Amino acid sequence: MSDSGPQYAAELVVGLRAGNRRALARLLTEAENGSPAGREGLRLLFADTGRAHTVGITGSPGAGKSTVTNMLAKAYRAQDKTVAIVAVDPSSPFTQGAILGDRVRMQDLSGDPGVFVRSLASRGALGGLSHGTLDVVAVLDASGRDVILIETVGAGQDEVEIAGAAQTTVLINTPGMGDDIQAMKAGIMEIADVLCVNKADHPGVDALIGQLRALLSLNVHADWQPPIVPTIATQGEGADALLEAITAHREHLVSTGKLALRERDRFRRQVLAIARAELLAGMLHGPRGEQRLAQILDDVTARHLDPHSAAAAWIDQGLHA
Amino acid sequence: MSDSGPQYAAELVVGLRAGNRRALARLLTEAENGSPAGREGLRLLFADTGRAHTVGITGSPGAGKSTVTNMLAKAYRAQDKTVAIVAVDPSSPFTQGAILGDRVRMQDLSGDPGVFVRSLASRGALGGLSHGTLDVVAVLDASGRDVILIETVGAGQDEVEIAGAAQTTVLINTPGMGDDIQAMKAGIMEIADVLCVNKADHPGVDALIGQLRALLSLNVHADWQPPIVPTIATQGEGADALLEAITAHREHLVSTGKLALRERDRFRRQVLAIARAELLAGMLHGPRGEQRLAQILDDVTARHLDPHSAAAAWIDQGLHA
Repeated sequence: MSDSGPQYAAELVVGLRAGNRRALARLLTEAENGSPAGREGLRLLFADTGRAHTVGITGSPGAGKSTVTNMLAKAYRAQDKTVAIVAVDPSSPFTQGAILGDRVRMQDLSGDPGVFVRSLASRGALGGLSHGTLDVVAVLDASGRDVILIETVGAGQDEVEIAGAAQTTVLINTPGMGDDIQAMKAGIMEIADVLCVNKADHPGVDALIGQLRALLSLNVHADWQPPIVPTIATQGEGADALLEAITAHREHLVSTGKLALRERDRFRRQVLAIARAELLAGMLHGPRGEQRLAQILDDVTARHLDPHSAAAAWIDQGLHA
Repeated sequence: MSDSGPQYAAELVVGLRAGNRRALARLLTEAENGSPAGREGLRLLFADTGRAHTVGITGSPGAGKSTVTNMLAKAYRAQDKTVAIVAVDPSSPFTQGAILGDRVRMQDLSGDPGVFVRSLASRGALGGLSHGTLDVVAVLDASGRDVILIETVGAGQDEVEIAGAAQTTVLINTPGMGDDIQAMKAGIMEIADVLCVNKADHPGVDALIGQLRALLSLNVHADWQPPIVPTIATQGEGADALLEAITAHREHLVSTGKLALRERDRFRRQVLAIARAELLAGMLHGPRGEQRLAQILDDVTARHLDPHSAAAAWIDQGLHA
């Protein structure tokens, strides 16, 4: 195989279509990195996307996201559905990579060719989920997986972005968390399509379910009431009910036409995010882009020019260069 | 007062310089909203910025960020320093605002004119900390506050951004958290300048300090070793030691010249973030920007065009329109 460019991408796409896991893995790497081969591969495969059910799994740290994800993957396998798991791990600036990696994760799923696991590093300061995440999901979709479970380890910002990337978002809650977490939960309540109450054998589960119901009742205009599904993921309890709730949500999206509307909205945000990055890159790498920026930053650090005026001046110069 | 435009901004700036808290509050609202008056106010005040010590307070949900922030504010007041607190709260899509608001927060600080508290809603999907946060900090800086404490309620992405906004970042840890949190902590370790171990009367504090030391030891090349400061913020214990560690970090930044380097880097990121948003807005609101986008999205949803090719086509059309 040649190692870059369109030829390499075309070969990987052929391999992927033949069911070659190594070709799939390589294409995912190229897609995640946003390399020319990755872009070309996506271009070639894009017509094959749009068939998988993409499911975001999110929740506070310690809620048991990995365990619930594993449990769900097994439940889908029991229905003979093929599964991909995309685990977005926080990257460590020390190690420059995903520190959890594929680790202990999914040990009891390994060896099953119907499950494909991919860990991605989240890109912190570069914007939570990297652009690459959506591209990775697209490649997995094109590879013919029935279900793609997208799991974040982080909390907060990532959760909102993951919801934007998936058709169905499962928010995992656990009893006995603090006030901050309750607040955070309220903030992301709107993005939750299914509420999983994990560790349902812990004290405080009834109070939590009551709180969730109260939060949901605020949203009277919704045509979808997120079901609340108790689970004990470590023991596999509640797996089928959770899977059913997720499937019911997709059926709701299909029957109401919201699946297509949400997809268009997702593409709109993705195209605009790419465009924004490309426009900035074009200006930075354009005529004297970096030099002009350095001069303008001299004025800013000297307090002669505020950042908004600086940005406007930099753009204006660039457009007339 | 006229209610918009340069005249209004100029009047608010005069009020702010005279120490009028109401003018300050109004200017902060304009700055947070990115209104024309806010931009103009910032332009007029920008020469007065750069004097405050900006301190980010971050950590996992439940770590006691608000309590530590209050404790620090009181310690600064005991040194006769004026303090502003910027509390970035998660916004609720239901209420369209900060759900914690100023709540119970800072009750024992109210009535002290040396403390000014401002809650900001974080902007979730729009990019964690809003652009407005840096503008709000700049206005408070120009108002002559000695110290600006910037506290997030969220975790993850926000933490990295807050670190980018502050000169000194305090990461709060507490004993007895789960593995996910330890992992997250590793991911944001590099951004922490001071490590506060709060709830130091809880079990597991020695183990936590040992873990933090081990993580720090990975970073052998650093010329600043983040001190580990135990606190029991609910009882005010450790306040002076924490304040000293924060002050020592600023002295380190000044003596090594890193204060200016970090500031320039911060301005660079801010100017580029503004430019990116402005470039995209220019294209969207330019000739048939939205119409062209809608047509291109038709091709994407029909799987005739992948998102990267779509963004490139949209930009290309826009530049030649």
